Amino acid sequence: MTASSIPLTPRLAAVEIAAGEKIVLAGGAPMRLDSGVDLGPVTLAYQTYGALNAARSNAILVCHALTGDQFAAEDHPVTGRPGWWSTMIGPGKPIDTDRYFVICPNVIGGCMGSTGPREINPATGQPWALDFPVITIGDMVRAEKLLIDALGIDQLFAVLGGSMGGMQALAWASAYPERVFAAIPIATAAKHSSQNIAFHEVGRQAIMADPDWTGGAYLTQGRNPSRGLAVARMAAHITYLSEAALHRKFGRNLQDRSAITYGFDADFQVESYLRHQGSTFVDRFDANSYLYITKAMDYFDLGNGDDSLAAAVERVRARFLVISFDSDWLYPSYQSQEIVSVLRSRNVDVAYCELASNYGHDAFLVDTGQQTALVRGFLARTYEKAVG
Amino acid sequence: MTASSIPLTPRLAAVEIAAGEKIVLAGGAPMRLDSGVDLGPVTLAYQTYGALNAARSNAILVCHALTGDQFAAEDHPVTGRPGWWSTMIGPGKPIDTDRYFVICPNVIGGCMGSTGPREINPATGQPWALDFPVITIGDMVRAEKLLIDALGIDQLFAVLGGSMGGMQALAWASAYPERVFAAIPIATAAKHSSQNIAFHEVGRQAIMADPDWTGGAYLTQGRNPSRGLAVARMAAHITYLSEAALHRKFGRNLQDRSAITYGFDADFQVESYLRHQGSTFVDRFDANSYLYITKAMDYFDLGNGDDSLAAAVERVRARFLVISFDSDWLYPSYQSQEIVSVLRSRNVDVAYCELASNYGHDAFLVDTGQQTALVRGFLARTYEKAVG
Repeated sequence: MTASSIPLTPRLAAVEIAAGEKIVLAGGAPMRLDSGVDLGPVTLAYQTYGALNAARSNAILVCHALTGDQFAAEDHPVTGRPGWWSTMIGPGKPIDTDRYFVICPNVIGGCMGSTGPREINPATGQPWALDFPVITIGDMVRAEKLLIDALGIDQLFAVLGGSMGGMQALAWASAYPERVFAAIPIATAAKHSSQNIAFHEVGRQAIMADPDWTGGAYLTQGRNPSRGLAVARMAAHITYLSEAALHRKFGRNLQDRSAITYGFDADFQVESYLRHQGSTFVDRFDANSYLYITKAMDYFDLGNGDDSLAAAVERVRARFLVISFDSDWLYPSYQSQEIVSVLRSRNVDVAYCELASNYGHDAFLVDTGQQTALVRGFLARTYEKAVG
Repeated sequence: MTASSIPLTPRLAAVEIAAGEKIVLAGGAPMRLDSGVDLGPVTLAYQTYGALNAARSNAILVCHALTGDQFAAEDHPVTGRPGWWSTMIGPGKPIDTDRYFVICPNVIGGCMGSTGPREINPATGQPWALDFPVITIGDMVRAEKLLIDALGIDQLFAVLGGSMGGMQALAWASAYPERVFAAIPIATAAKHSSQNIAFHEVGRQAIMADPDWTGGAYLTQGRNPSRGLAVARMAAHITYLSEAALHRKFGRNLQDRSAITYGFDADFQVESYLRHQGSTFVDRFDANSYLYITKAMDYFDLGNGDDSLAAAVERVRARFLVISFDSDWLYPSYQSQEIVSVLRSRNVDVAYCELASNYGHDAFLVDTGQQTALVRGFLARTYEKAVG
């Protein structure tokens, strides 16, 4: 089920792959970023599940969210926990690896092996840290496109993902219309709102306020801004859940005690839970990557302003399934509806569903009942059409 | 308009008042806190506006929110900015100082002169810091009641406030039913929700993560956890505004530039605004006070569990005006409606209004159009009844 189980074709064999799960893009040639900076060589780490068919027509690109990575459908090598979309990807599952070839890359700027601030800058032999150029969702997609090129796939059957993964799905369909047959952006937006930016800025400031961040150079100094990163994660985590989900899960229940203690210990379960979320996160995520990826999301604006959103989707050829969740207050349904509206105005084939869920933004990861049925059916029927 | 302009009665003159704006409660006797700790002597700093009438029947207690203080209706001595409710309090204003005597204390645990972690612990001669006992909304109200005793007022005509001020209004009406003629809790809740607690915990963790916090002892070490406190303020500030307010105010507008810079500078106005909110806050607020007051709010549960909320209001005699704002997602309207519902179930006289506003929780401070009319009318008509 891992990359090592892919039946590599001769064309793939020509590509430099480190440990079967990494690829140097475009033969090491630099990639021009949205910022104008040339970055190279660019490596993407990725996992695949299932097998590419002979026609190379069954490839699905699964794009991860801010703190996700390429280990979507297998136990995570650091945490040992099931992959973040293991409910969705696998044999007989909605993204059925008996039928589809699933590719899940770690985004550029990430910290699980793809070129990013934690990796070595060849010019200095040191980690990039803040010398790494600021990247965008467009740059992530540009790198993924080079990966798809290298895998010899002319057209992806589908691109999908939730949250930042959904942004990538949108950017793919807009930037490479001939390369995407279907797209499923979930719990996402065509642009980051002021409130989205605000929450991310709090996280960045929490990291930068940590003296162990040392202007980003902590890796070479043997330090780690884990306290700042934990605070950033805690603040973000609240935004991933609905108020109702927090209430149902924790309410005002006390943690391992029968009465409040009149102290600053974690009296309430929700406090204990958040502290746990913060402290475990720092074991698997890099603080500088958190800065770069949140910034890429904040910069995301598919239309570079509302007036040009229509222009951005003018060339789109993919058919869409757009999904939002009614309790998601981070990317509220109206933001998905804006996407649907502009796509329909260009007569793009769009199915839209707002799903009822109490889980808030995290619903795309955890509340997979209705989502499962929707994605399964949409992919299956669309695949029948695609293979004709 | 300040405390020094109050016509002090002989009874007041017998009370020790420092600089006309501070009072040592109960002659310096200790106050038994909800935690069981005896704290004393307890000082409250307070400001008053208007004059107490001969019948002592025109007193209104205005309770401040988390980061508010006693300077409700005059320029703030530290920031120089207008008082936080200067739109509501003054001659001819809804809380009309030509008619009412307005008392605004700094809460116990605060940092503007009332006994709190920044003040000197008489046992050590050093600031209390974390030796200060954890206080509750009930303790704040207990101290305010001693202030009202000292001012010779048997019954407050009204108690009102927004957010934590509203919690105090609720606690007053419940704890001292004979001492409150009318109560106006605004944008508040009968208990802190799981999400409320979660956001506060993030703020506390941000402060405690700052090495300059030094376990709370920063004052004696000449340090200040200003970075942590600024992050706490930034996170909290987002929760005070609605998404729509942020969108209308900032959208994705850039700060003093025509294009994004591909860097970690504050490209967007909302980032710059939040940083400003954080950095100015630390000039006027004490980090330990932030810990204590947020904890007091988190502990707030008027009924000690839903089943006993009815019991908590059983003895209430005040008539109520309850106000919520439809865009307030920190204390959503349903929380005010729970208050209204339980009060009505005890046949308490309650008027409830959910006001339309785009400002979110901050509406009680800034969107004073409808609130002004409501409070003005309710107070005026109720006062006519009271003086009968």
